[in-house]
Amino acid sequence: MPKPSLREHILDAGLAVMFQQGYAGASVRDIVGAASAPQGSFTNHFGSKEAFASEVLDRYFIYVQELMAQTLGNKSLLPLNRIRAYLDLITQKLTDAEFCHGCLIGDFSLETPTHSELLRQQLQRIFAAWHEPFAHCIREAQKAGQLTDTLRAEDLADVVIAGWQGSILRMKVERSVLPLEQFKTVAFATFLKDLTT
Amino acid sequence: MPKPSLREHILDAGLAVMFQQGYAGASVRDIVGAASAPQGSFTNHFGSKEAFASEVLDRYFIYVQELMAQTLGNKSLLPLNRIRAYLDLITQKLTDAEFCHGCLIGDFSLETPTHSELLRQQLQRIFAAWHEPFAHCIREAQKAGQLTDTLRAEDLADVVIAGWQGSILRMKVERSVLPLEQFKTVAFATFLKDLTT
Repeated sequence: MPKPSLREHILDAGLAVMFQQGYAGASVRDIVGAASAPQGSFTNHFGSKEAFASEVLDRYFIYVQELMAQTLGNKSLLPLNRIRAYLDLITQKLTDAEFCHGCLIGDFSLETPTHSELLRQQLQRIFAAWHEPFAHCIREAQKAGQLTDTLRAEDLADVVIAGWQGSILRMKVERSVLPLEQFKTVAFATFLKDLTT
Repeated sequence: MPKPSLREHILDAGLAVMFQQGYAGASVRDIVGAASAPQGSFTNHFGSKEAFASEVLDRYFIYVQELMAQTLGNKSLLPLNRIRAYLDLITQKLTDAEFCHGCLIGDFSLETPTHSELLRQQLQRIFAAWHEPFAHCIREAQKAGQLTDTLRAEDLADVVIAGWQGSILRMKVERSVLPLEQFKTVAFATFLKDLTT
């Protein structure tokens, strides 16, 4: 296996530091310290903390998109079951991490819009791209009669994503899986209720 | 009117700084700078940033509890309508602030559990106290036949609070009221559906 470049190594270390300390709380010194890299290499590779955070965020969303492809893109499941598979997979990942960190997109959403218009606009694009596979599953479920079509698929998709982010937020405080399970219980009994079972 | 004490003044300024920069990103120097107070007065009055943030958070929750009393405690409204009144009041407050800041409890929930066990436990107590008036309204609505009782009032109350926090998170990215309105649309059409209208 080829050795990861110093650039990649700083990005990996920076993700962990930003999860731990947030965008504002993570200094360039903290990041290069975690990567055991010279400060000059950070400047050479990234220029600024804002540009660096933008790259960390894009890489993180690529990871989320892989998890979406495994679940929301799994055509062997009925459309609503794909959404459940996604939420169950994320629940498992967060449990494995002992509820110590949540979702970088959520963290950055609360923190960075006051600091960086660049990151805010990037988050807008990420949410739009995140929304799409959820809305697609919901439209398919509505077309197949698995879900009532009295509500707009677009609204439902956004509420699923927002409700899930809020449940992760509560999970971080409780250090417990309960808020995630409560959300799934209510969602799949009401606005994502499977009409075929 | 008596002049607010320096202590109160530092607390007010500190709330604004923590909304803007987060817990980790707000240094004691930033806080005393915003309050035009000498650094020594911060140390005298609060001891540490953690103790200061704890007091800011408690004061903020007293403000939220006043908004809850006005709405969730308004016995002239039917129980579900009290919840709508609360969400509408918060929507108005966030709109007035031009979506620039959200809820300090949400911000601290994502950020502080990795920094401070004291703040994490305080947030746990705040969520428990926040939950209670929601669960009470929902139980009353279920008893009065305004809401189906197929779901536990405790789960519904937590999902309302979590879903709302997630909607505020999205609002900060979009700088728009839309995520808040989407949440209300879906909630009051499904898990908070009024059976009497």
